[in-house]
Amino acid sequence: MTTCWVPGADGSPYGVQTLPYGAFRHSGGAGSPGGGSPGGGSPGGGSPGGGSPGGEQRLGVRIGDFVLDLRGAEDADLILAGGALCQPTLDAFLALGRAQWTTVRRRIVELLTESEHRAAVEPLLVPLAQVDLVMPFTVGDYVDFYSSEQHASNVGQIFRPGQPLLTPNWRHLPIGYHGRAGTVVVSGTPIVRPCGQRRSSAGPVFGPSGRLDIEAEVGFVVGVPTRLGDRVPTERFADHVFGVTLVNDWSARDIQAWEYQPLGPFLGKSFATSVSPWIVPLEALEHAWVPAPPQDPPVLPYLAESSRRGLDLSIVVEWNGTKVSEPPFAGMYWTPAQQLAHLTVNGAALRTGDLYASGTVSGDRRDQVGSFLELTWGGTEPVTLDDGSLRTFLDDGDTVTITATAPGPAGTTIGLGEVTGTVLPAS
Amino acid sequence: MTTCWVPGADGSPYGVQTLPYGAFRHSGGAGSPGGGSPGGGSPGGGSPGGGSPGGEQRLGVRIGDFVLDLRGAEDADLILAGGALCQPTLDAFLALGRAQWTTVRRRIVELLTESEHRAAVEPLLVPLAQVDLVMPFTVGDYVDFYSSEQHASNVGQIFRPGQPLLTPNWRHLPIGYHGRAGTVVVSGTPIVRPCGQRRSSAGPVFGPSGRLDIEAEVGFVVGVPTRLGDRVPTERFADHVFGVTLVNDWSARDIQAWEYQPLGPFLGKSFATSVSPWIVPLEALEHAWVPAPPQDPPVLPYLAESSRRGLDLSIVVEWNGTKVSEPPFAGMYWTPAQQLAHLTVNGAALRTGDLYASGTVSGDRRDQVGSFLELTWGGTEPVTLDDGSLRTFLDDGDTVTITATAPGPAGTTIGLGEVTGTVLPAS
Repeated sequence: MTTCWVPGADGSPYGVQTLPYGAFRHSGGAGSPGGGSPGGGSPGGGSPGGGSPGGEQRLGVRIGDFVLDLRGAEDADLILAGGALCQPTLDAFLALGRAQWTTVRRRIVELLTESEHRAAVEPLLVPLAQVDLVMPFTVGDYVDFYSSEQHASNVGQIFRPGQPLLTPNWRHLPIGYHGRAGTVVVSGTPIVRPCGQRRSSAGPVFGPSGRLDIEAEVGFVVGVPTRLGDRVPTERFADHVFGVTLVNDWSARDIQAWEYQPLGPFLGKSFATSVSPWIVPLEALEHAWVPAPPQDPPVLPYLAESSRRGLDLSIVVEWNGTKVSEPPFAGMYWTPAQQLAHLTVNGAALRTGDLYASGTVSGDRRDQVGSFLELTWGGTEPVTLDDGSLRTFLDDGDTVTITATAPGPAGTTIGLGEVTGTVLPAS
Repeated sequence: MTTCWVPGADGSPYGVQTLPYGAFRHSGGAGSPGGGSPGGGSPGGGSPGGGSPGGEQRLGVRIGDFVLDLRGAEDADLILAGGALCQPTLDAFLALGRAQWTTVRRRIVELLTESEHRAAVEPLLVPLAQVDLVMPFTVGDYVDFYSSEQHASNVGQIFRPGQPLLTPNWRHLPIGYHGRAGTVVVSGTPIVRPCGQRRSSAGPVFGPSGRLDIEAEVGFVVGVPTRLGDRVPTERFADHVFGVTLVNDWSARDIQAWEYQPLGPFLGKSFATSVSPWIVPLEALEHAWVPAPPQDPPVLPYLAESSRRGLDLSIVVEWNGTKVSEPPFAGMYWTPAQQLAHLTVNGAALRTGDLYASGTVSGDRRDQVGSFLELTWGGTEPVTLDDGSLRTFLDDGDTVTITATAPGPAGTTIGLGEVTGTVLPAS
């Protein structure tokens, strides 16, 4: 593996094998609480590019426990990207396309590994402890899929007992729906417990959700748009998708259960969806592709893949610091290439910044599920956290942190950052 | 009624009582086909502000069969709006809020009615025949409600025969879901027949939709945003909503029927949603408010209104020039103020440009329904058009045009423009 001159980068999940993109502001102090953690976030985030305290918003790439200031690098002609790296968000860079993404990534590797660049580049490194990470791109449309067979089966059993585990369409197409793009927020944004209607024996009642949950998911960020009427066949996936981010699709199960028939989830989901501040480019995941599970029955030709590939991401879900689950992403029934092919097969246009998420990632075992609905089987089987407390759904003050890693080249590990959020009482 | 000096404006549905906002480009010719019709649109629209043939994109307000060039008016200091009217889209103007909206509207009325302004303003009038109308604002999130009791009952009978007409939640909350903001297109954009999966007796098959349909709806455009966590109570509706636009939410019923369980409509809707090029400000509709139907059972307090008000819009649906339906908007069970209160009660933030639509507008009678699914009762009862041809769903080459009017002050009529589209064969 190439040697990086940044102290502590080699051997870290954020060495030059990873190089995820984000946006930051100098926090202006002697280091924010949380030290090198990338999940500090900006409360109230979700509106990239807007002015707020903490200085000008800039693009950066993570290396070890530092952020390389990409605006500084492009201003100094160390990287040439036509000004795309001098913007407050990744939007312009995302639109450039695969060839430019690869060129810029190679140049960043040169800057961080060749000692001749150290003098020029080192002043552009900012310790993670001195930045606030903010929402790095403008979300176009947000689509949420439902592509884990184990998750869909579990939810079917819990929400529709006595009926078949999966709806008849589930093995024929990747079920998905549109979520609310305007409430996609960066990791660290507090999650205020939502209010809404839920069922009671006396009819619907209004109040704070009593079944606030998470969904651990993997998100795909679209860079290159399409025109209305165009399709993206499975083999063109990497021409359009820039990279990957972790997603927590917060869900109020009691609101959802009452509202979702016949048109799907709405207020049970739309209050907040958190994403990692780091977008890991597909190039960093080249060694993480593994064969995806076989599909039976065979899929229609527009969903077929010459080589079915899933990403071998190891996800960890922590509830107040207790590891409660390790969902395996490699086992997803529908792959990200199939999801994109389906999403566009009707001619729906893609925009730069479109975000589509995998759906909750759940494996076969109870300690591999991506939601607390499944972990506690609809709230009937509480879990015990390390401090001895019992939980079914989220209490006020609870913090959930989702992290993930993937295999990198030459035995290295790719870090996918983290998406974290703390529940505040209903307002 | 105030007298307008623009020839033909007085007595027209686009006199000074209306003054809808839009965006246009000079079509650069001796007049485009279609004469004074406002529905010409820009094929491939939906991406406001982008460059394209036909000159620079400008904001305008319709008066009679002319467009008043608002950029020209602000550049000449005839209107003061802090530069918001010099932008290619309404986005900045929408964000200004009610007081500024009203000030600008009053000033436009002065300019068009006081003869002292005629010499300065007349050169800024462009005949409608010489412009292409384009998408006038950037759509944030697009939400589609389902608020006509007659429509929901009809769909329930057709899609879920033998089950109750309405789901148990329907009278307790305005059912809604998120649609695809990136495929909201301006009136006139051709609608390519979408492909997708549909059921057959031998399992799902792929191909062009055979049941392409419309949904005649009324859309509400959000101007003033909210922060994450804020709610918009019913009485604050007019502080946030700028105005109204007509919507045709094109729907592929066969794709929808197969995909929509359990998470709602997706590809059956996401290929295109057309909107009128004109946004009619709420001020123009002051005389169109009428009492909304009583609700039983009583709604929860957050949905209560001190005075339940619906808009008395008369909608007309034409299929290849044959008037097939006149849906009455005044009878909608859930009002636009209730829809907005529900949408935000969980703390979901609003952004400038958010669009929410009423859901298909259907009245009690067959000639008052807002979809062809209902008009032909699931395709079982064809309609005869004026040329003698029979239809169930849309054929390639068919054109659907939706128009609407509302009562204005002193016996005048408010025109809501039109939303039109022609079906092209699947690609």
